[in-house]
Amino acid sequence: MNIIDIINKTKRRTALTADEINWLVSGYTNGSIPDYQMSAWLMAVCLNGLTEDETVALTFALRDSGDIMHLDLPLTADKHSTGGVGDKTSLIIGPIAAACGVPVAKMSGRGLGHTGGTIDKLESIEGFRTDLSIEEFRDILKKTGFAIVAQSGELCPADKKIYALRNATGTVDSIPLICASIMSKKLAMNTDIIVLDVKYGSGAFMKTKADADKLARLMEKIGLSAGKKCRAIVTDMNSPLGNNVGNALEVSEAIEILQGKKKDGLYDVCIELAANILGLAGKGTLAECKALAEKTIADGSALGVLRETIRLQGGNERICDDTSLLPQARCSYTVRAVERMKIVAIDSEEIGMTSLMLGAGRLSKEDPIDMTAGIVMHCSPGETLGADDEIMTLYSTVCSDFSDAAVRALNAVKTSGEARKSYT
Amino acid sequence: MNIIDIINKTKRRTALTADEINWLVSGYTNGSIPDYQMSAWLMAVCLNGLTEDETVALTFALRDSGDIMHLDLPLTADKHSTGGVGDKTSLIIGPIAAACGVPVAKMSGRGLGHTGGTIDKLESIEGFRTDLSIEEFRDILKKTGFAIVAQSGELCPADKKIYALRNATGTVDSIPLICASIMSKKLAMNTDIIVLDVKYGSGAFMKTKADADKLARLMEKIGLSAGKKCRAIVTDMNSPLGNNVGNALEVSEAIEILQGKKKDGLYDVCIELAANILGLAGKGTLAECKALAEKTIADGSALGVLRETIRLQGGNERICDDTSLLPQARCSYTVRAVERMKIVAIDSEEIGMTSLMLGAGRLSKEDPIDMTAGIVMHCSPGETLGADDEIMTLYSTVCSDFSDAAVRALNAVKTSGEARKSYT
Repeated sequence: MNIIDIINKTKRRTALTADEINWLVSGYTNGSIPDYQMSAWLMAVCLNGLTEDETVALTFALRDSGDIMHLDLPLTADKHSTGGVGDKTSLIIGPIAAACGVPVAKMSGRGLGHTGGTIDKLESIEGFRTDLSIEEFRDILKKTGFAIVAQSGELCPADKKIYALRNATGTVDSIPLICASIMSKKLAMNTDIIVLDVKYGSGAFMKTKADADKLARLMEKIGLSAGKKCRAIVTDMNSPLGNNVGNALEVSEAIEILQGKKKDGLYDVCIELAANILGLAGKGTLAECKALAEKTIADGSALGVLRETIRLQGGNERICDDTSLLPQARCSYTVRAVERMKIVAIDSEEIGMTSLMLGAGRLSKEDPIDMTAGIVMHCSPGETLGADDEIMTLYSTVCSDFSDAAVRALNAVKTSGEARKSYT
Repeated sequence: MNIIDIINKTKRRTALTADEINWLVSGYTNGSIPDYQMSAWLMAVCLNGLTEDETVALTFALRDSGDIMHLDLPLTADKHSTGGVGDKTSLIIGPIAAACGVPVAKMSGRGLGHTGGTIDKLESIEGFRTDLSIEEFRDILKKTGFAIVAQSGELCPADKKIYALRNATGTVDSIPLICASIMSKKLAMNTDIIVLDVKYGSGAFMKTKADADKLARLMEKIGLSAGKKCRAIVTDMNSPLGNNVGNALEVSEAIEILQGKKKDGLYDVCIELAANILGLAGKGTLAECKALAEKTIADGSALGVLRETIRLQGGNERICDDTSLLPQARCSYTVRAVERMKIVAIDSEEIGMTSLMLGAGRLSKEDPIDMTAGIVMHCSPGETLGADDEIMTLYSTVCSDFSDAAVRALNAVKTSGEARKSYT
């Protein structure tokens, strides 16, 4: 085989065989194919796409580039969201499913963009360790039913190397490449059940429902063809998920949901996704599984799982009872309505960009994150606010001048009529 | 500016500004933009194209990456063919124009593919030197009106670096990239007149007349916008140009044309292209210029120019009077008609591939070339041959078993009816 022939095939929309894709991935991983040839191929994929069969072959090749996890438990589940603004569902769904007897094994990454990834969010908890050995990870999973570990170089090293190259060459936004990257890691984690939450809308990777449906179907197909129980659900991300955006702020909101203090759209999405895991685990109909999931919040058992997981992963588990023990921002600004106004929409992409300005996210791998920074929304689309009512509060420790962020955040809130907004 | 933004613009078909293109080319040339980012951009260009304005800007950026030649002569011309099987027109047109008082300054490359480039062909002449200094080159140009030099790293270094990357990343076949690469070198050579011969058909880079027309118009536009007298002519390359394919064999055929011994399709194309140079130089109407050109062959003055150029560039100029002094192949095979047949077509691409098999070309830069190898066709499309008439002769020194090459060459000759061909 010959790398130029392979690049030319994809350039001319001729499908590659599984053998050719394996050769390409292993050649790139072992260094015999240089970056500049791989990036030309990746750009051809971005512009011409891959067939379903090619995407399946690419996913398997990425999975097989490293170790495959053996969890030593009779039935395990994994859950993945394609990311979005204010997405803290993993911290809620994992404990719920575990409390119902379905262990959830989760490997997460650090994030680039609006806020950190799940691993960054958890590191806002004092003492929390995510660099577990495989033995520790399996041990905690057995004890509590929920464990979370940072992505290691042993699983899917080819994906790690290719992702870094995509990030540096403008080749991130390709459905087959996104799909293969996500699914290879799910298949390497090797749980029996995989539930996928594919988000669309302003704050998500997929801007349209049609693209999200396409990605969802493709990921489901790959999971099924690898012999997994797999389901992909498409959810709306046009407004931020929940009220809080930011690392410690999102951990705090996840705990409030598990404490049963909040029953909003975020709660509904989490119950729905958890019920799908339970359904695939044979726990009953979707309605029965939703009832099971809701019970774990009502009786505190889901929060109990999270408390124990935090303790075993070295974190201060008392945050589960007192979220004020999470790191708090040094500065805050509250944006208020100047007059009566109806909230029509909240642009989650713009809210995310504001949270990045406040220090909650990073643009390059080396940037530090302000764990305390972010936004708490005090209203939702459809609500009417009176004069002086709070719209949102911005938090930051690294940023002391909030004027730019406040203007951007205000513009993200669409109101009916000529209502004026202000910040104090 | 930011390389990711530039890649994304081309990926999304948003035109780059001239400043962005200059930044990209100079960043790649000075090493601040790595190969893997440049190759992603090149693939995006291959698949999405560039606008005319972007192509002009890219050409100027490549030209300005190195020195620009100053020829110190009142009126000079350059001629370029986009390549094809058996193309030895430069060796004929240069001497004709020079003999009419229009000096032709030519920088050529070594070739990859069917046969060597013009530089390789000339090196089949004993002693001939193409690595001239700029002073030597200008001196010979002044003395004879025709000089030819190998591409140096001082002119268009950005083009040289990008061409090597394109060759290694499947990004050669793009009209704007081909156009910018050719025209940047023509503009750096900095003659007053540029005549371009854009070939299409089976043996050429452009397979269709429509693509060749597009490339021709684009190159002409760039030449004119740089203030040059510029004309691009589209010519057919479905049959090989002339009878001989191979390095020494093509030098030999060029001399036969200049000796006035052959007046075939190759002769007509050369007169046409030379007349266009003379026309742009103000020597009269196209008909008058054709007459001028033909006269230089009839009176031997064009051959005189070539003889003197070969002598000044260190070669054995006696080949101009006795082509048997060129290197001769050790082995030859002649293919004959078994029965009466009409030649319908000769596939020049396949004839080229056969000549490569015989040793006349190279697939990678380091491969050696057999200067003696190649093919002499003894018939043309439209001709009828009787039983036992010669179709072609294959020559080689490195290849002693001609069976594979003979079968391939035979298949390249399309005959009417069921005529059988054979080789002896």
